[in-house]
Amino acid sequence: MKYEYTVSDYLLDRLSELGIRHMFGVPGDYNLAFLDDVIDHEGMEWVGNRNELNAAYAADGYARINGIAALSTTFGVGELSAINGIAGSYAEHVPVVKISGAPTTKVMDNGLYVHHTLGDGKFDHFSRMFQEVTAAQTFLTQENAAHEIDRVLLACLTEKRPVHITLPIDVYNKPASKPTSPLHEEVADSNQEALEQMLAEITPMINEANRPVILAGYEVNRYENREELLQFADKTGIPVTILSGGKGVFNEEHPQFIGVYNGELSAPYLQQRVDEADCIIQIGAKPTDSTTGGFSYNFSEKNVIQISPFSVKATEKKHAPITMHDALSALSGKVSKKDPESMDIKSLHEQLKSGTYEAKEENLQQNRFFERLSSFMKEKDILLAEQGTAYYGAATMPIPKDTMVIGQPLWGSIGFTLPALLGSQLADMRRRNILLIGDGSFQLTAQELSTMLAQQIKPIIFLINNDGYTVERAIHGENQPYNDIPMWDYMKLPEVFDPEGKTLTLKVKTETELEEALKTAEDNSESMTFIEVIMHRDDKPDLLEQLSKRFANQNA
Amino acid sequence: MKYEYTVSDYLLDRLSELGIRHMFGVPGDYNLAFLDDVIDHEGMEWVGNRNELNAAYAADGYARINGIAALSTTFGVGELSAINGIAGSYAEHVPVVKISGAPTTKVMDNGLYVHHTLGDGKFDHFSRMFQEVTAAQTFLTQENAAHEIDRVLLACLTEKRPVHITLPIDVYNKPASKPTSPLHEEVADSNQEALEQMLAEITPMINEANRPVILAGYEVNRYENREELLQFADKTGIPVTILSGGKGVFNEEHPQFIGVYNGELSAPYLQQRVDEADCIIQIGAKPTDSTTGGFSYNFSEKNVIQISPFSVKATEKKHAPITMHDALSALSGKVSKKDPESMDIKSLHEQLKSGTYEAKEENLQQNRFFERLSSFMKEKDILLAEQGTAYYGAATMPIPKDTMVIGQPLWGSIGFTLPALLGSQLADMRRRNILLIGDGSFQLTAQELSTMLAQQIKPIIFLINNDGYTVERAIHGENQPYNDIPMWDYMKLPEVFDPEGKTLTLKVKTETELEEALKTAEDNSESMTFIEVIMHRDDKPDLLEQLSKRFANQNA
Repeated sequence: MKYEYTVSDYLLDRLSELGIRHMFGVPGDYNLAFLDDVIDHEGMEWVGNRNELNAAYAADGYARINGIAALSTTFGVGELSAINGIAGSYAEHVPVVKISGAPTTKVMDNGLYVHHTLGDGKFDHFSRMFQEVTAAQTFLTQENAAHEIDRVLLACLTEKRPVHITLPIDVYNKPASKPTSPLHEEVADSNQEALEQMLAEITPMINEANRPVILAGYEVNRYENREELLQFADKTGIPVTILSGGKGVFNEEHPQFIGVYNGELSAPYLQQRVDEADCIIQIGAKPTDSTTGGFSYNFSEKNVIQISPFSVKATEKKHAPITMHDALSALSGKVSKKDPESMDIKSLHEQLKSGTYEAKEENLQQNRFFERLSSFMKEKDILLAEQGTAYYGAATMPIPKDTMVIGQPLWGSIGFTLPALLGSQLADMRRRNILLIGDGSFQLTAQELSTMLAQQIKPIIFLINNDGYTVERAIHGENQPYNDIPMWDYMKLPEVFDPEGKTLTLKVKTETELEEALKTAEDNSESMTFIEVIMHRDDKPDLLEQLSKRFANQNA
Repeated sequence: MKYEYTVSDYLLDRLSELGIRHMFGVPGDYNLAFLDDVIDHEGMEWVGNRNELNAAYAADGYARINGIAALSTTFGVGELSAINGIAGSYAEHVPVVKISGAPTTKVMDNGLYVHHTLGDGKFDHFSRMFQEVTAAQTFLTQENAAHEIDRVLLACLTEKRPVHITLPIDVYNKPASKPTSPLHEEVADSNQEALEQMLAEITPMINEANRPVILAGYEVNRYENREELLQFADKTGIPVTILSGGKGVFNEEHPQFIGVYNGELSAPYLQQRVDEADCIIQIGAKPTDSTTGGFSYNFSEKNVIQISPFSVKATEKKHAPITMHDALSALSGKVSKKDPESMDIKSLHEQLKSGTYEAKEENLQQNRFFERLSSFMKEKDILLAEQGTAYYGAATMPIPKDTMVIGQPLWGSIGFTLPALLGSQLADMRRRNILLIGDGSFQLTAQELSTMLAQQIKPIIFLINNDGYTVERAIHGENQPYNDIPMWDYMKLPEVFDPEGKTLTLKVKTETELEEALKTAEDNSESMTFIEVIMHRDDKPDLLEQLSKRFANQNA
């Protein structure tokens, strides 16, 4: 007999409450019955992926736009296939709920040698592996389910990192009591005393600085503090730069925006302004090799004020717990507004303006492609840029207000953005999604194009075909065979994956062809647009050209 | 300045010494420079895969035929993408050497926030994850390299399980001394006293048994004891049955072979003979749910003699260390030959004979397909059967002498066999490789077809298109959308992956069409043959029909 309210109901209601409307994943016999409940749950839609790694990538893309995501796979084989995607979410602070089906409690208690195990009668190997790449883990039982679900979801919300739930296939249908209060009410808050001490220390530091700068990063997005950052910038008048991973956290058309910082690889005016600053207010920004030209920043650590998701730190003292939201709001009310003249803001912002682009009858080059793409983008677009030429081309490309950029500069798992696009598009069907991905990366996860076609989503995909792993060639082994890949007839793939469909496929090699393709893509509201862009094997955006040399040195 | 003999040389020489001629993997900046040495190494060929999971599967398939395999990926992203494949090798005792590139010792010592890490300055997360699914792990340094390489390779050889080597990108080119003695000389041996005590206990047990039976499993293959098993069977006259995972360990045309045992799902004569046996000699056989009809064997554990890779166990006493080779050889010399009459051998073996198959003008059915395939197979063929209808159809299908079957009954990771075929074919180009894979599984790893075409290998691939996850439908949710997959135009895929090539593609729906296709495939020595076989969504081989019900019960 079926219980009226079960562990499944509890879990799915909680996920629903947090705003999750899609469950990604792949079925397997240890999660099939649970998936019945997913399908039956009002407001939850099952999205079957082509494999589990792709499911994890899709969930990651979904969470970056939706705030949180979930995926379900089977035990062992399924969860381990997904684990690289989960590790990426962990590295880049993306909250994803990973639900793994498991054998029944009885099978586990008896230590049976069942399929999808290592054949040693032990069932905790995989959850232990997930400990390294998730913020919290739980093994649900009939007794602990509701309590444990709340605990790990709260960790997911607070830390903005993935969590792992093992759900044995005899537990999902056991009785549970409906939640009595919303979960988000329990999310961590600021301490008033810490907040006041922080204000007392930090306010004069900023007020007394002659040449402060704001350096913002991706955590502003994760904790949804874009409004607070904008308000802080407006109220203080301090110029704003961002790390490439934080693209989208601040309106690049804002008069105080002075560009994307990349250490010594930044535009000279920007490098100088940041490195000379006497107060660097880092907001949700964590410098890594890939976003700082290989750690080539020259400002002094002692001038840094670090506003993190739950703390503020300057000199040696850390003030916590203080949420980023509270820190920015409180400081906005205290810090006095700087004189724009003394900040050079106008002249700095003007440097951003790109020249006028006019299409020529010439083969497309990377730098020209991104110059053109910049003006193709519209407000509210979501741009996904694969780690490689795509990411580093997009990094410094000016983008319109309210656009978002999805990339993976820290984790850098190639193939990520194609499935991530499935997630980011499903997360908000009203926003236009644009993907830039190289052929080398595309081949890793190509089958997820099939899921997108089945879901009938309509993004614009630019497949940059430059004949192999161009980013690797730039770092090492330019002509080595390991950087070659088989040449595919990419234009035929949509036909394979969707024989009845009518995907718009276009191939461009010259600037004028690109011009036409962009026009066609813009007019196409019927289907996905899949554009193969041919570029030279060794052509790279300027930033990647320089960064790859620094990576080569870092590896020597 | 380059050293004359380096850590790379040492590692690659050792791998070469063990018989490895191909290195699978995917390049990344932490392994690129090492790959230069792979390419330069005489007798080692680089095989770039389409993604890392596929590389791990290919290495697994290679090791099952070649005895051992190796793959190289980059740090973090690469090794975690491969980890499910490595876990499969661990579960099913396949020796694979996983080499992961890593940042320089200096970067790690300084705890830098570099790409492909979790951004916490720690570099041991991933090797710790590999502890769960490898027999040994090492983190190479300039000081320990030679010694540590030997230690983990020895573990790989002895335990027939994967090992994990982290190779920082500043260590591969450091000086090393050439190995002075071959590695296999150090592999574990038997203890003479243990061997004698074993003989004293076990010999009379077998001699006194009236109805003994040999139950052999896949470990006979892993430890290359097929000859010893054959000799033991010949010398003792005892009938031989096998678990499906052990298909290929014993010649099915041998007069003592009595069929593939599946617990209560076995042919009635076979079930009765095994369950009634008063002495069950398990040789390298480990019963799991998937190979025993959900543990439905009814023989008494007290009648079991277990001959394992390094021990022999009967009643409560374990004799060790004794290698399977020595145990079988010694027992072959001691046990007296049974009277074939008293064993019913002739009548048991006769039950195996299949009827005469004649193609009809009818749609193909699963049982008929496998009936036909049985006679299509030739001596020395390697058959890869994907977990699902393919595996369970092939499990009881009679196969000729000296054929091998590759499947994954314990780990059961779908999609495995397609990349595994790349490995098994490269391991021995003289043997014909035949793959049976369902559409549901195929989609997970489909891009590896591209690597096979690039490598110009010429297997015969049967893609069983039955519109979704038929094995899952059989267990739960027959008509649930989560068991549906997008329908692809599979015949066009080889064109996408190999635009210049000329793969032979065929599509069959009826028995007569299959007949023609088989003839064409047999005559085609020019290219891969890719045959799409259309079968009904809910049609299943008999064994799977029954096993899936037992799995459903096991999950309830």
